[in-house]
Amino acid sequence: MSQELQYKDCIEACFEAVNASNVCYVSCLKEYDIAMLRECIELTRECSDICSFAADAMSRMSPFASDICSLTIQICEACAAECEKHPHQHCQDCAAACRRCVEVCREMCCVA
Amino acid sequence: MSQELQYKDCIEACFEAVNASNVCYVSCLKEYDIAMLRECIELTRECSDICSFAADAMSRMSPFASDICSLTIQICEACAAECEKHPHQHCQDCAAACRRCVEVCREMCCVA
Amino acid sequence: MSQELQYKDCIEACFEAVNASNVCYVSCLKEYDIAMLRECIELTRECSDICSFAADAMSRMSPFASDICSLTIQICEACAAECEKHPHQHCQDCAAACRRCVEVCREMCCVA
Amino acid sequence: MSQELQYKDCIEACFEAVNASNVCYVSCLKEYDIAMLRECIELTRECSDICSFAADAMSRMSPFASDICSLTIQICEACAAECEKHPHQHCQDCAAACRRCVEVCREMCCVA
Repeated sequence: MSQELQYKDCIEACFEAVNASNVCYVSCLKEYDIAMLRECIELTRECSDICSFAADAMSRMSPFASDICSLTIQICEACAAECEKHPHQHCQDCAAACRRCVEVCREMCCVA
Repeated sequence: MSQELQYKDCIEACFEAVNASNVCYVSCLKEYDIAMLRECIELTRECSDICSFAADAMSRMSPFASDICSLTIQICEACAAECEKHPHQHCQDCAAACRRCVEVCREMCCVA
Repeated sequence: MSQELQYKDCIEACFEAVNASNVCYVSCLKEYDIAMLRECIELTRECSDICSFAADAMSRMSPFASDICSLTIQICEACAAECEKHPHQHCQDCAAACRRCVEVCREMCCVA
Repeated sequence: MSQELQYKDCIEACFEAVNASNVCYVSCLKEYDIAMLRECIELTRECSDICSFAADAMSRMSPFASDICSLTIQICEACAAECEKHPHQHCQDCAAACRRCVEVCREMCCVA
């Protein structure tokens, strides 16, 4: 099924972003400087929720996949911008996964 | 982080099951013999929902990961048993992904 | 908290739509004319998923609540349009809950 | 549909718990003493996620509703126990909603 192939990379990039943002979220909760990480905790949750939702939607070939990916792009960008402000490795890893997800979602949205 | 490594295979197996059960779900909806596939449609949705929930929970190292995996095992087994009744390739693929997920979740639950 | 009050009606309308669309979904799966209800089954799942996501996002005062509501409006409208084609009571009830959800989400989006 | 009526109170109690735990979560993130609230932030997320999942499952009359409610009871109890340690009004409100949800879920599980 060609649509399935079309979504494959994007689903994987979303799953990677779910992982990275959840690892960042739970790691932030344990950091000494938690008071500096309020927005990071908030946005990593937003990010993992929408990425999980998007991967789920694409894997069932939702008629709204493109619109859901547009929203995913927006939220991943906000999460990446916040994570990039912090020196923790989990923040940097999360930012990289979010940037990658944005890139792949953008390709998907243009093709669809 | 060792806990992260511990969950890695299980998260991947859950994501595979989300994919396979959603592909099966949407494919069943298009089949000529849809009236034979009512339970398959119902259970693939149950399965993708819990597997997505479990992957999310493990990636944030939820204190309830083991209990969530126990429930995942139960639902994946029911889904696999139903899918195995049908000759469609997407049903067979879903059953295989569910069986694999059960196996990996079981190892995870025993270790945790 | 004023933001909380602002979202209250919209959260309730989303929860109503989750309920109605899930009842319609599971009822369609049991109907004799299931082959006529393929799109209804597909769209009620899309609808319950986004409405649940939106209610969750609003209750945590997500910075993306407005954008998520815009997407919710789009999906609820598609679901209502499909449900209105079918004479089943659960379809009619679902269409009404979706139309109501669209209305309340629209007010929320304009204010926010 | 009698099953629908059976679940009605339980679905409502779950939605109330989603609301209260998400309000507590986002409020904790803004508190001055955030470092004291790490577990509260973690558990309110766990709680809202499972309660949302449970409400969704019951509204579609999932064959696994009872098992999902058992897990919901466990997570709501952990969340309530943590919230009760903190003097903030949102923590107390969340604890009350969780205790209520536990009570109603317990009745539902026994009947089912």
